Amino acid sequence: MRAEVLRRIHARDWAPGALIPTEEALAQEFGCARATVNRALRELAETGVLERRRKAGTRVALSPPRRATLDIPVTRLEVEGRGQAYGFHLLEQRLREAPAPVTSRLGLAPGLELLQLKTLHLADGRPFLLEDRWLNPAVLPDPAPDFAAISANEWLVGHVPYTTGDIAFSAASASAEEAEVLGLAEGAALFIVERSTWERDLPVTTVRLAYAPGYRLRTVV
Amino acid sequence: MRAEVLRRIHARDWAPGALIPTEEALAQEFGCARATVNRALRELAETGVLERRRKAGTRVALSPPRRATLDIPVTRLEVEGRGQAYGFHLLEQRLREAPAPVTSRLGLAPGLELLQLKTLHLADGRPFLLEDRWLNPAVLPDPAPDFAAISANEWLVGHVPYTTGDIAFSAASASAEEAEVLGLAEGAALFIVERSTWERDLPVTTVRLAYAPGYRLRTVV
Repeated sequence: MRAEVLRRIHARDWAPGALIPTEEALAQEFGCARATVNRALRELAETGVLERRRKAGTRVALSPPRRATLDIPVTRLEVEGRGQAYGFHLLEQRLREAPAPVTSRLGLAPGLELLQLKTLHLADGRPFLLEDRWLNPAVLPDPAPDFAAISANEWLVGHVPYTTGDIAFSAASASAEEAEVLGLAEGAALFIVERSTWERDLPVTTVRLAYAPGYRLRTVV
Repeated sequence: MRAEVLRRIHARDWAPGALIPTEEALAQEFGCARATVNRALRELAETGVLERRRKAGTRVALSPPRRATLDIPVTRLEVEGRGQAYGFHLLEQRLREAPAPVTSRLGLAPGLELLQLKTLHLADGRPFLLEDRWLNPAVLPDPAPDFAAISANEWLVGHVPYTTGDIAFSAASASAEEAEVLGLAEGAALFIVERSTWERDLPVTTVRLAYAPGYRLRTVV
């Protein structure tokens, strides 16, 4: 749905400045729920591709947004790239029923069992990043990798391709648990990356990365 | 320097996994300071393009990092895209000597006078984003635009092209001033975007965007 809307804009089927069909019309054409159409249009409007005004309908933006590209490195390489020594500790690994926000992020049925892995990444021996990951056991070989010897982050990059994913960046105050693990005061401002990936229709993993203060994610436009 | 290193990697002059020349050799070849070479290599290593190991030298990474693209919308369109009403207040506008961190970010001589603009952006009447911008007066027409009528953010997108820029994302605790303007408790976790842009060699602007809690910057890979 979202991809098809983007295709029509890029192909100029819908020209810059043009009013696009209503949500009802699109829901009918794509045979999907109006809520799905609404969500896709909202996401495209948030990125500046579409202009939505209450009552006035939705138009293709006249000037497309500027784009930046962002490289997503393996954490080990990122730390070593800073000239620091890399290390990590696997804090927790257990197969358990995933909470609803996790299954919903991945588009899975509620109540499914997923592998939860909590990993603390270190730079020069100091906490750098706390990784809280849920992994679909269906993507693991038998026997499963030893995630105390290779971090789930690095193993996945090397072994499980993914075709699509979404990423969100935000800030959050450190919870009591995060503060303790990262060696910070409770409430410290953490940079948060949330990422979910799929291989075709198979959900692979969803992860929350909480970076210790001072971290900056840099790129160029 | 950085661009030329990337070019050699993409052109496979330096193959994946290959050891690249030492910093001394590159500094000599490019006729620049070793610190400049060190900074460029470090930045490329942080993005996963190069692998740096203490003592073992710097290699081209075997598997290139995954890339995400990020759209950078005008704040008005971003707010309207969420289905909310947009508004803004110009809080402060003055021509003054820019502090050293600002001139250094833009590569300008210290002590130069720049136009500082503080703008509060609103979504449905509530604080959404505090913009603290320094603008090079050399890019302004005479008479200058009325930044109380059109936000500096939107005016720049429509009137001043830029050719290069850098962006950094991080988290910070709200200062007393930020907390007051955004209507938050001091120390609340803010999502921060810092962006500097140039038109060829002319510095255009550097801006710090502090988003109220709850904001998420989303994209896909």
